[in-house]
Amino acid sequence: MPEAATRQRWRLDISYNGAGFHGWAGQPGLRTVEHTIEETLAIIGRGAARSNGLVPRGDRAWDGSEFIGRVVCAGRTDAGVHARGQVAHVDIDPRLSAVMKPDWVRYRLAGLLSDDVAVHEVRIVEHTFDARFSALFRRYAYRICDDPSTVDALRRHEVTRHHRRLDLDAMNEAADALIGEHDFAAFCKPRPGRTTVRQLLTCHWTRDCAGHAVLDISADAFCHSMVRTITGALVAVGEGRASPSWVARTLSGGYRDPQLRVMPAQGLTLEEVAYPPEERWADRQIVTRTVRATALVAPAATPTLGPR
Amino acid sequence: MPEAATRQRWRLDISYNGAGFHGWAGQPGLRTVEHTIEETLAIIGRGAARSNGLVPRGDRAWDGSEFIGRVVCAGRTDAGVHARGQVAHVDIDPRLSAVMKPDWVRYRLAGLLSDDVAVHEVRIVEHTFDARFSALFRRYAYRICDDPSTVDALRRHEVTRHHRRLDLDAMNEAADALIGEHDFAAFCKPRPGRTTVRQLLTCHWTRDCAGHAVLDISADAFCHSMVRTITGALVAVGEGRASPSWVARTLSGGYRDPQLRVMPAQGLTLEEVAYPPEERWADRQIVTRTVRATALVAPAATPTLGPR
Repeated sequence: MPEAATRQRWRLDISYNGAGFHGWAGQPGLRTVEHTIEETLAIIGRGAARSNGLVPRGDRAWDGSEFIGRVVCAGRTDAGVHARGQVAHVDIDPRLSAVMKPDWVRYRLAGLLSDDVAVHEVRIVEHTFDARFSALFRRYAYRICDDPSTVDALRRHEVTRHHRRLDLDAMNEAADALIGEHDFAAFCKPRPGRTTVRQLLTCHWTRDCAGHAVLDISADAFCHSMVRTITGALVAVGEGRASPSWVARTLSGGYRDPQLRVMPAQGLTLEEVAYPPEERWADRQIVTRTVRATALVAPAATPTLGPR
Repeated sequence: MPEAATRQRWRLDISYNGAGFHGWAGQPGLRTVEHTIEETLAIIGRGAARSNGLVPRGDRAWDGSEFIGRVVCAGRTDAGVHARGQVAHVDIDPRLSAVMKPDWVRYRLAGLLSDDVAVHEVRIVEHTFDARFSALFRRYAYRICDDPSTVDALRRHEVTRHHRRLDLDAMNEAADALIGEHDFAAFCKPRPGRTTVRQLLTCHWTRDCAGHAVLDISADAFCHSMVRTITGALVAVGEGRASPSWVARTLSGGYRDPQLRVMPAQGLTLEEVAYPPEERWADRQIVTRTVRATALVAPAATPTLGPR
């Protein structure tokens, strides 16, 4: 098998309706986005390899996976979370990339993938591009229908229903305190040895033209369940169950408040992953990998959920 | 049974994903929006009637339909067509309306209806309100994805895929000729004895933020398959298969060109039905019923599909 460096790297731009998937990451026996795309690429690659004589005639056992690497994404979404702007990369054996052009692969993917997942762009990129580590930031949207008169049966799959009207001004006051570089340990499921320091770039609620409350939230990267936990805290403020200052105290406390609610996956969509210009892909990877190696910041005392 | 005039009239605001329905109008053995809503209202009404002693104890044969009239809508959408702003009215027996309040019914509907249909408003209106005949205009949107890089797996159910890029400027030039009061016989499936004269108020293409081509089209009312046939003619222009002036010639010809294509139902959504202020509901009904009684305009010669 040739060295990875001689393989051709492809960038894939992907959207999916998360309802039918057990998240991005492959799990044995479960339908995941990663497996679905890898298997479909293998089918396409197998056909191209056979018709170009790259495998011995009659070798029915060969499954095509040897020629196609693992699909690595920018944001490993949880079960039920949607994506409109997911980005991934995959390395293709040069024997196969010589006979399989990106536009043809996109066309074949459109024919083979089911309706709830689409690869809308396939392009050749330099090896300095890494879907995960070259990314500048990820942008998510969380959508809530908090008014029964704005229910839209056509968008219901990407919107969470909420039975109390939300005060977006109070939620935005609370959200402002989260902007910037902080240890978000209070808002994520920590993983041993991993930092929970992140730089939150935007965190703001608006009403869209349908009347739904939409959180626009972006950060260099997010910890596990961080967006849905921050959303849960802001919803507590929007309902009047907590004050905006409670969110700031929870953040500085650094411990997970047991009253914090993780919002349902259905309302969450990965909208965009942004990258620097091509000449800065390699540098960005070095910066990102260094930041991720930083140790945890020592947590302070925990504030409790106070009345507003 | 009491007179219709003593029944209470309710206005229902409805949205649905048309994919799972054989259109609005009830058909034996098929799942339609009309049947689904009528049956669900009957279930709610039956429960309310039984628990308030309005039917004899033990009368298991009684199905509740006696107390609830037919659900009459503003736009009888075809199979597969969606609605975000459908409006309907229904008359409720006063014995039942005395024990069943609109807000409670909306709450019960939300619990009983499946995810692809929602009644987002139930309110009491005067009997001068008629969902069909009091309407000022209907507004539809037709959505087309004509660029594979803008495919959105989350919105695919309400967007038609098209494999050639469309020229919206040419389509808008053609669309302008359709605005105003015309006999649209060339763009609809005529029904014997019914006029095909309609007043087209808006007909304009834009690109939405996702990059999809969206037709905004409104008229006092539409004939059968009129929106999808007009869209098909404009798409022929957008592809360069026909000139903008061919659309104007087809309209004035008054005969259906066999090359006219009816676009798929999937891309079409009834977005809005507009009504005048309450004091003009009765007058509007009289105007609409009179207009519908107008005889067909005599058709002229048929132009053929010319090159652009």
